Amino acid sequence: MNVYDKLQSLGIQLPAASVPAASYAPFVRSGNLIFLSGHLARRDGQIWVGRLGAGMSTEQGKEAARAVAIDLMGTLHAATSDLNAIVQIVKLMSLVNSTADFTEQHLVTNGASDLLAEVFGDRGKHARSAFGVAQLPLGACMEIELIAQVGE
Amino acid sequence: MNVYDKLQSLGIQLPAASVPAASYAPFVRSGNLIFLSGHLARRDGQIWVGRLGAGMSTEQGKEAARAVAIDLMGTLHAATSDLNAIVQIVKLMSLVNSTADFTEQHLVTNGASDLLAEVFGDRGKHARSAFGVAQLPLGACMEIELIAQVGE
Amino acid sequence: MNVYDKLQSLGIQLPAASVPAASYAPFVRSGNLIFLSGHLARRDGQIWVGRLGAGMSTEQGKEAARAVAIDLMGTLHAATSDLNAIVQIVKLMSLVNSTADFTEQHLVTNGASDLLAEVFGDRGKHARSAFGVAQLPLGACMEIELIAQVGE
Repeated sequence: MNVYDKLQSLGIQLPAASVPAASYAPFVRSGNLIFLSGHLARRDGQIWVGRLGAGMSTEQGKEAARAVAIDLMGTLHAATSDLNAIVQIVKLMSLVNSTADFTEQHLVTNGASDLLAEVFGDRGKHARSAFGVAQLPLGACMEIELIAQVGE
Repeated sequence: MNVYDKLQSLGIQLPAASVPAASYAPFVRSGNLIFLSGHLARRDGQIWVGRLGAGMSTEQGKEAARAVAIDLMGTLHAATSDLNAIVQIVKLMSLVNSTADFTEQHLVTNGASDLLAEVFGDRGKHARSAFGVAQLPLGACMEIELIAQVGE
Repeated sequence: MNVYDKLQSLGIQLPAASVPAASYAPFVRSGNLIFLSGHLARRDGQIWVGRLGAGMSTEQGKEAARAVAIDLMGTLHAATSDLNAIVQIVKLMSLVNSTADFTEQHLVTNGASDLLAEVFGDRGKHARSAFGVAQLPLGACMEIELIAQVGE
């Protein structure tokens, strides 16, 4: 199935490529790999500030992770001009702003992983690391970095 | 030396590929690189819960890191069907569940690095980052992600 | 412009490749990619101990990040024998030793990103993740890992 049809059926509209918060590029292509910068969670266009385990639930974290995945796809579209050219979502690194007691980073991150699998099918199945960080830029609740493969 | 002979001489029996704790794949191959998901430390088949600097010593952390390396090799075997096909262990990312005072993440991670060097020889010498995280999925004391190269 | 001329005009003298603090290699090459180990911040040859948000300012953090970038270039020189052979700085992972309240990891990391862009020009524009970690080996204030591409 065409990736854009799938996105439309899910009611998802992709944003433009994320504008980095500092001196770096939203993505770099090297050979067949596209390395995306860590994308901070946003809500209504603003940084989604929060910490899991301190007033933010696992369900809310999943929503934030899903929102980051949509932004990552926006950047992937800008990088490839055609999301159907993506052969594989290779790897995610998911950083969850966490108290020392919060241990559901894997469930939070599923908000991103599930959406990528839904949109890209088998090509969306990726390797992944998810963990709790002490803090994130601008106080964001989540940051996710992605590697994708195009062409052969 | 054959990698499996080396493992046998060390009394190491490889487990099956790790079953991810959530919606992702234990590994993804892209070109000549195999990206392994972060593997959580386990002991007797259960998540090895703990935090370095809070009731868990550097020595115990090294044991946990060694245990993760064994699980990573199990997944590498599943990915390659033949560990002798591995040209290089390229990189580890080692996440150590740490208090704000614990500063021996590098020594803890040696538990994994030393074993990989012992089993794979020169092909086991890798680049690496090791650092202290606020918390890990399911309260695990360690999580390690690995990139390996096969073929040429 | 020749990279070494640029370094000289900035008054920067590259150190030898960093000596790892433990059982791993300072870099590994795989295909056209060079993976550098996480490099700890140093000052006057010693580990630069500190934590952002606890007695260390964003400006000081930027200086530390810049110092790590110089050490990374030293290792890149050892890896390539000629920094002009670098096609692209692909990605940084920047680990900032942070209190739970410090949210300027992106500004701190600019100390490294800005220098790489200055030295390498367009080839220095990279993808990046920056985040706050609970603690780092030996109490270092910063650790940065880098991926670069050589050849075609």
